[in-house]
Amino acid sequence: MNKPSLLELLAEVQLGTLTPEQASSRLSVLPFEDLDYAKIDHQRALRTGLPEVIYAAGKSAAQTAEIFGRMAATGADVLATRADEATAAAVAAVSPASEYHRQACAITLRQAPTTEPLGHLAVLCAGTSDLHAAEEAAVTAELFGTRVSRIYDVGVSGIHRLFAQRDSLATADVVIVCAGMEGALPSVVGGLVGVPVIAVPTSVGYGASFAGAAALLGMLNSCSPNVCVVNIDNGFGAAYTATLIARAAHK
Amino acid sequence: MNKPSLLELLAEVQLGTLTPEQASSRLSVLPFEDLDYAKIDHQRALRTGLPEVIYAAGKSAAQTAEIFGRMAATGADVLATRADEATAAAVAAVSPASEYHRQACAITLRQAPTTEPLGHLAVLCAGTSDLHAAEEAAVTAELFGTRVSRIYDVGVSGIHRLFAQRDSLATADVVIVCAGMEGALPSVVGGLVGVPVIAVPTSVGYGASFAGAAALLGMLNSCSPNVCVVNIDNGFGAAYTATLIARAAHK
Amino acid sequence: MNKPSLLELLAEVQLGTLTPEQASSRLSVLPFEDLDYAKIDHQRALRTGLPEVIYAAGKSAAQTAEIFGRMAATGADVLATRADEATAAAVAAVSPASEYHRQACAITLRQAPTTEPLGHLAVLCAGTSDLHAAEEAAVTAELFGTRVSRIYDVGVSGIHRLFAQRDSLATADVVIVCAGMEGALPSVVGGLVGVPVIAVPTSVGYGASFAGAAALLGMLNSCSPNVCVVNIDNGFGAAYTATLIARAAHK
Amino acid sequence: MNKPSLLELLAEVQLGTLTPEQASSRLSVLPFEDLDYAKIDHQRALRTGLPEVIYAAGKSAAQTAEIFGRMAATGADVLATRADEATAAAVAAVSPASEYHRQACAITLRQAPTTEPLGHLAVLCAGTSDLHAAEEAAVTAELFGTRVSRIYDVGVSGIHRLFAQRDSLATADVVIVCAGMEGALPSVVGGLVGVPVIAVPTSVGYGASFAGAAALLGMLNSCSPNVCVVNIDNGFGAAYTATLIARAAHK
Amino acid sequence: MNKPSLLELLAEVQLGTLTPEQASSRLSVLPFEDLDYAKIDHQRALRTGLPEVIYAAGKSAAQTAEIFGRMAATGADVLATRADEATAAAVAAVSPASEYHRQACAITLRQAPTTEPLGHLAVLCAGTSDLHAAEEAAVTAELFGTRVSRIYDVGVSGIHRLFAQRDSLATADVVIVCAGMEGALPSVVGGLVGVPVIAVPTSVGYGASFAGAAALLGMLNSCSPNVCVVNIDNGFGAAYTATLIARAAHK
Amino acid sequence: MNKPSLLELLAEVQLGTLTPEQASSRLSVLPFEDLDYAKIDHQRALRTGLPEVIYAAGKSAAQTAEIFGRMAATGADVLATRADEATAAAVAAVSPASEYHRQACAITLRQAPTTEPLGHLAVLCAGTSDLHAAEEAAVTAELFGTRVSRIYDVGVSGIHRLFAQRDSLATADVVIVCAGMEGALPSVVGGLVGVPVIAVPTSVGYGASFAGAAALLGMLNSCSPNVCVVNIDNGFGAAYTATLIARAAHK
Amino acid sequence: MNKPSLLELLAEVQLGTLTPEQASSRLSVLPFEDLDYAKIDHQRALRTGLPEVIYAAGKSAAQTAEIFGRMAATGADVLATRADEATAAAVAAVSPASEYHRQACAITLRQAPTTEPLGHLAVLCAGTSDLHAAEEAAVTAELFGTRVSRIYDVGVSGIHRLFAQRDSLATADVVIVCAGMEGALPSVVGGLVGVPVIAVPTSVGYGASFAGAAALLGMLNSCSPNVCVVNIDNGFGAAYTATLIARAAHK
Amino acid sequence: MNKPSLLELLAEVQLGTLTPEQASSRLSVLPFEDLDYAKIDHQRALRTGLPEVIYAAGKSAAQTAEIFGRMAATGADVLATRADEATAAAVAAVSPASEYHRQACAITLRQAPTTEPLGHLAVLCAGTSDLHAAEEAAVTAELFGTRVSRIYDVGVSGIHRLFAQRDSLATADVVIVCAGMEGALPSVVGGLVGVPVIAVPTSVGYGASFAGAAALLGMLNSCSPNVCVVNIDNGFGAAYTATLIARAAHK
Repeated sequence: MNKPSLLELLAEVQLGTLTPEQASSRLSVLPFEDLDYAKIDHQRALRTGLPEVIYAAGKSAAQTAEIFGRMAATGADVLATRADEATAAAVAAVSPASEYHRQACAITLRQAPTTEPLGHLAVLCAGTSDLHAAEEAAVTAELFGTRVSRIYDVGVSGIHRLFAQRDSLATADVVIVCAGMEGALPSVVGGLVGVPVIAVPTSVGYGASFAGAAALLGMLNSCSPNVCVVNIDNGFGAAYTATLIARAAHK
Repeated sequence: MNKPSLLELLAEVQLGTLTPEQASSRLSVLPFEDLDYAKIDHQRALRTGLPEVIYAAGKSAAQTAEIFGRMAATGADVLATRADEATAAAVAAVSPASEYHRQACAITLRQAPTTEPLGHLAVLCAGTSDLHAAEEAAVTAELFGTRVSRIYDVGVSGIHRLFAQRDSLATADVVIVCAGMEGALPSVVGGLVGVPVIAVPTSVGYGASFAGAAALLGMLNSCSPNVCVVNIDNGFGAAYTATLIARAAHK
Repeated sequence: MNKPSLLELLAEVQLGTLTPEQASSRLSVLPFEDLDYAKIDHQRALRTGLPEVIYAAGKSAAQTAEIFGRMAATGADVLATRADEATAAAVAAVSPASEYHRQACAITLRQAPTTEPLGHLAVLCAGTSDLHAAEEAAVTAELFGTRVSRIYDVGVSGIHRLFAQRDSLATADVVIVCAGMEGALPSVVGGLVGVPVIAVPTSVGYGASFAGAAALLGMLNSCSPNVCVVNIDNGFGAAYTATLIARAAHK
Repeated sequence: MNKPSLLELLAEVQLGTLTPEQASSRLSVLPFEDLDYAKIDHQRALRTGLPEVIYAAGKSAAQTAEIFGRMAATGADVLATRADEATAAAVAAVSPASEYHRQACAITLRQAPTTEPLGHLAVLCAGTSDLHAAEEAAVTAELFGTRVSRIYDVGVSGIHRLFAQRDSLATADVVIVCAGMEGALPSVVGGLVGVPVIAVPTSVGYGASFAGAAALLGMLNSCSPNVCVVNIDNGFGAAYTATLIARAAHK
Repeated sequence: MNKPSLLELLAEVQLGTLTPEQASSRLSVLPFEDLDYAKIDHQRALRTGLPEVIYAAGKSAAQTAEIFGRMAATGADVLATRADEATAAAVAAVSPASEYHRQACAITLRQAPTTEPLGHLAVLCAGTSDLHAAEEAAVTAELFGTRVSRIYDVGVSGIHRLFAQRDSLATADVVIVCAGMEGALPSVVGGLVGVPVIAVPTSVGYGASFAGAAALLGMLNSCSPNVCVVNIDNGFGAAYTATLIARAAHK
Repeated sequence: MNKPSLLELLAEVQLGTLTPEQASSRLSVLPFEDLDYAKIDHQRALRTGLPEVIYAAGKSAAQTAEIFGRMAATGADVLATRADEATAAAVAAVSPASEYHRQACAITLRQAPTTEPLGHLAVLCAGTSDLHAAEEAAVTAELFGTRVSRIYDVGVSGIHRLFAQRDSLATADVVIVCAGMEGALPSVVGGLVGVPVIAVPTSVGYGASFAGAAALLGMLNSCSPNVCVVNIDNGFGAAYTATLIARAAHK
Repeated sequence: MNKPSLLELLAEVQLGTLTPEQASSRLSVLPFEDLDYAKIDHQRALRTGLPEVIYAAGKSAAQTAEIFGRMAATGADVLATRADEATAAAVAAVSPASEYHRQACAITLRQAPTTEPLGHLAVLCAGTSDLHAAEEAAVTAELFGTRVSRIYDVGVSGIHRLFAQRDSLATADVVIVCAGMEGALPSVVGGLVGVPVIAVPTSVGYGASFAGAAALLGMLNSCSPNVCVVNIDNGFGAAYTATLIARAAHK
Repeated sequence: MNKPSLLELLAEVQLGTLTPEQASSRLSVLPFEDLDYAKIDHQRALRTGLPEVIYAAGKSAAQTAEIFGRMAATGADVLATRADEATAAAVAAVSPASEYHRQACAITLRQAPTTEPLGHLAVLCAGTSDLHAAEEAAVTAELFGTRVSRIYDVGVSGIHRLFAQRDSLATADVVIVCAGMEGALPSVVGGLVGVPVIAVPTSVGYGASFAGAAALLGMLNSCSPNVCVVNIDNGFGAAYTATLIARAAHK
């Protein structure tokens, strides 16, 4: 039941062609949640302003391109994650203004009028192999309208590299830390900052890294209490939550 | 929003003291699901007739006894699972007609008028150590009004014991099979019957049984396509689903 | 020992050419189970009417086609699961009336006279990536003669989509729910319906989904007692058991 | 090197009793980080205002009581988590104004002047067995000065209970969701709100819950992108991060 | 159907009071497997001569004593494994001639006339902590009538201790090797002997031994092809199989 | 130090050109184990008569062919396991009399004079997908001179197929059982025979079979005490041990 | 065969009462390895000077005391690890000069003349809960004659505490780092020093620490190449290896 | 802040253009760690003399070649690990003097003046399949200036092969042992030598080896106290630590 049909029903009550009892009965069995939840969803979209997102993994290049095109037609910003080069080419064919971010494996289309960035996110990664997750986070957050500082290759085995970046860290509203192998960086960062740290374990490593499980476990056991964790390689999810935090701090 | 308040609102529309637009707006923000879902729940209770159940593990004897007493006061049948002897004593103090099933670790109170059992469930177990799960299933199903055939100690290492019970198996509407260690019995039973088999892995075993994980994995990989699985030692859940199946076959 | 040879033996006893002791001795060592179990199997086939099924994974296209052709020659309905396009082509060459269901990766041949569907199964899935399992279940159940309602893309992160389908759910005799990632949908559905829910974890996800293990564990721990579980991606097994349940409810 | 000794060194340079080269050499080998990091730490404490916390698990009642007493002597608020009743008694002996929160297993001492709560946190839990984690989170956040709405026993198998609480949810700056077993609640909640959701898997369950691992995996694989996760039963860590988020939104 | 009733049936056929068709029909539905399998079981008992065994873990002292007493009354040898001292005392009360083997946690009663041992089993263990499994194996095999050489405390970190025992090893028909921690001993022994080696992982160790899982995995991956493996701490099963091997070599 | 050089040394002592002290010193530091262990190895080869074996996995076709050729040149029987077709072709080029067993992925060369088979091994498998392991076992045992009965496709979901083969089983000296998925067949077989059963879990299955781990765990937890286990898909190792058992029974 | 008997044998050859062939034969079958390996062992003991060690876990207090007493009677230093207070009391009764180290759960007896410490070991731990492992390492190394610097409670979430101790670290020949939870400290330390770091994961933590497995995996995946790892809580093993390294650097 | 800017600042203090307070303030906020840690790093490089290392896995051939070329331009020795042949070719194009070690998958460039090797490392492996790890270790250590003895194919199932190499073992300062499958070799070696043993589990094996996890667990549980462990296949890390140990013994 959408708003017009609800109004129509209530108009019938007003006109007396429907008794309150009849209307009550119909309201109880109608799928009114559609109306209700769609509204909630809409309110959320209005409030957070986060564009629609396509998860391209497991979709064909053609499928992703078609979905991307339809979303682009609404005039909104569009983001596709986990997209390879073939998919990027297919998207570019239907949406020439789209941009492919190779390290992030992400395609973006910016159509909404540019506004001042809202909030400041620092994205860190331990090594250059973690860039896929870090860039997915950075590109996502930037499309969502957050200012991003990239602080890369600051792993704990050479920890002075991290300290050299303390100024950028100091002004961030929220920090994302991507690390594979032992996944120790979020704990160290968590001890240096007074804002939430979202840890992204990456699948970087071999042998007993078990495709990121070692890093994931390390981060879940962090001795820094301001660290929370998302799924392995889930830079997108980290950026989504980080954007909510950064915005709230500047709304 | 309950039914009276909904009717009141619609009456206001009828009277003209509320415009359709105003009513639409209020209906969108009210928690009307309470009305709606409560109705659904009630219908379900009426339809399935399954009594309320208390999971006593992790509750003190006093807590379980208090909840049990309140439920008993409604005149309904009551079931408490995972109850030790101390809990049974506490319950007996407030509900003297309750019965403690030692092997099942279950307490039952039968208050509803006895009716003809609806459907036939065969409960099998591989060894005498699996009785805790098998009896939890049997006692639960009996309280729910299902006829139960107990076929115990028919493990696969002496498979002729199982075949001697083929007649009981042949008339069952649904079969529950409890087994620990290698958990092989459900596959063998699944090949002998033409009805659904609900497999209950038990925590019986040692070493590489990993507290029932080996039996669980075995059952999930059953080569008999009519086998589905519940959690380790979850005789209650198996009986709940089996009762739904057995009843449907005789409604 | 088949029936003729058993009768022959007993005739010899009748004629006196074999003493009871001799006959007893021979009956004890003969493989009479073949007679016995073949009968049981036959009865089961007659009772359930479920056609033969080929598991094509790990078989060459030629092997599957040959088996398919032989089964088709008996006049029965035939089903092959986990079949790729090459296999479908090979089967079509020997059995032109066969039909390939791309999303289900299943090949069906319907030869038996069409009858009224027996029972009603609702097949749900959380996301479009779970369609392979959902369609395997739906196609299997339909070939087995069950009416199927497909309710797709109703994952828990946008739960109003599920509620909009409550009417279809309400009339189902049994429900299959396919979900990957966190595997939460069966618990929600289990709380809405009064019939058995068969949960199919899918291998959809990445990182800590561990190829479906996370969804599997979630479903095994469901707080809804009417949920039971099959192996990861095992839409076929779910449909097999669901058909037994749906039929029993309408026999 | 603390500030006085640094000033002393620089004074020597000013006086000419130390050359710049000598001072440079000494500054390079002195443990100057102590100064530096202590400052950072102090700034962080000033900025976040979060009191010191004692993790009582693995400490004797006497040890916890002694540490608690020393902290209390500074006039600050004090929090001890994972404390049993014996520990609470020992603490009460040295700090009579301390309060024991039985369900949270936490001891608090509020000494700082009460201020207006800063930000609004909703703490949800799926079942009453999850209260230990939920209350640890709620008590922690309240001591940290955050307003807390408790929304308990709203598990997904009876999801209308959750919807009835949508108003409380709607105004929260951040949400904590505690759940054991299948851990599905955070995904459902994540789909209903536009703020960050911090998921706390609990060790509630048995068998294939593997002491909370099933819930943990489910939450990490959440299909709602605004969900991040902390360690099993880590209500404290969730509240720490949630407080940082809630404060930032109202500073 | 036991032998007398079968003869009776066949006699009726001989007498003409039962036609072959009638007899055939009755034979097909009777639980004749009981006869058949019981016979097989009996033959096996005759052939292997292995006495009945009670698994005392999870049984009360009284239960074990009662079963033990009944078995003893048949005049056969009796063995109870995994029995603690209380159980041994209870058994001794009903069966004074029984003997308790403390390290093996086994109770034996030897009643059959002593015969010459059949075959030679060498039982090795890596350290003194593995004695529980090694002695369970040794005591079991001795009761089964096998000669046992005990070669204890010959772990791989001091491998010369093993070589000093090469003579005992050289004449064994089969070898059992018990080891915890890294479980390396079976591989070394397997390379020294030309007979089957049955490896028993033990739960000895800590940390990453994961209660014997590390030793189990090591043994399953043995580079010596004459090594096969039983469950963790399963000295009984190893001795059972070893006895079958040793006997066959000397029958 | 080989025997000639040892004799030479002792002769020097006899001649007086070497004092006992000097000889003692040289004997203590010389690698005399080479002599000693080589002798043991030789004795073992003489006693067991098992030919050399090449594990072709991870070797190039050329490498395997070269090793195969060298072994063949000694006149002994040769076996290469885990060999693909390309390797078989390369071996055939250097050793035209070699034979490739496609299902076993094994190459054999029989050069030793044929003798009467020694002992009888029954090799069972649950399904046709397990043939790779079953045939590896069968081909290996046959080359080692053991008589092999193949009993294939007798999985537990249609257990009458197994019983029809009881005669072949009854005369075996040892049994190998290969099964994937739930791995239940060895337990059933173990209950039917009075000889050792060597269980070979196979990697057949999907989802929660975890590449054979489920079958492996099932077999390790077998309730039949005459079952022992080898690594997943290790038909070769099973046949090696089985041959030792079968021979001993007929030596 | 010890040295005197070997000389005796060789003397017989010299005297002509034994031919070289006879001597060769006897040397081949005698357990001469005992001599040989005992020598190696003795040499090793002489070279490393490490006293005998008793692993008291799993031994009764009486057993440990008896072994301790016998070792003490040889005049050597004695060490017992994993000893509780009752064991310490029992040992003190037989060896009054022994000393109990409560945090290390170790008992030491120093009898050898005190010598100058050889080499310098730094033992670090992340938190006070890790002291059991750190002290086991420190006490072991000190008894072995190594100088030990204890640097405790320097976890990565407050990393300036570590930097303040850089001077002690700078002069160590080898470093042991004990940490539970995320186990990140060894990687940070490994990046600061130019000597080997031996990482000891501890069982400190809860939930997803899985009793030290998370820390273990983190350390195995360290991005610092000078880190190697021992078993969970194995402070003794770490100290044993560290002592070998520290000594070699100062021999 | 580098040294010149620090001196400049201190000169300003000397000149009086900056007060000590102003300088203190600036020193507190400047990133002076860069200076400090760079110095530490430099000292470490001077002290250990270990050349820079490129981890080529996950880098394109072009990327590795470019990095390699830049490092070579500094005149230092260069090492790239985990490099395939294509990468080796790309590197050879820019650095013709580089050498590719096929079994080690490593590329080396030796430019520093050759010096006398410092210390002696023995590298052992159990089988020829472990050569990739053993050679990675050997090539790394040789480039680092350590003398390496290769002792290959000495697995525990033919342990006399190991004993024949005891002389080489006896003079090593440190030992690296690479083994897959059951990973038993380090324990045996650890019992034979009086120096540290660094164990490298390899991914060699199948089935229950779980890609090296079985070997890893075995090594972590070694009963030889002088064994420590690195990640699966991490020959490089083992060689790095071994070099530090070997050098210290000969500095």
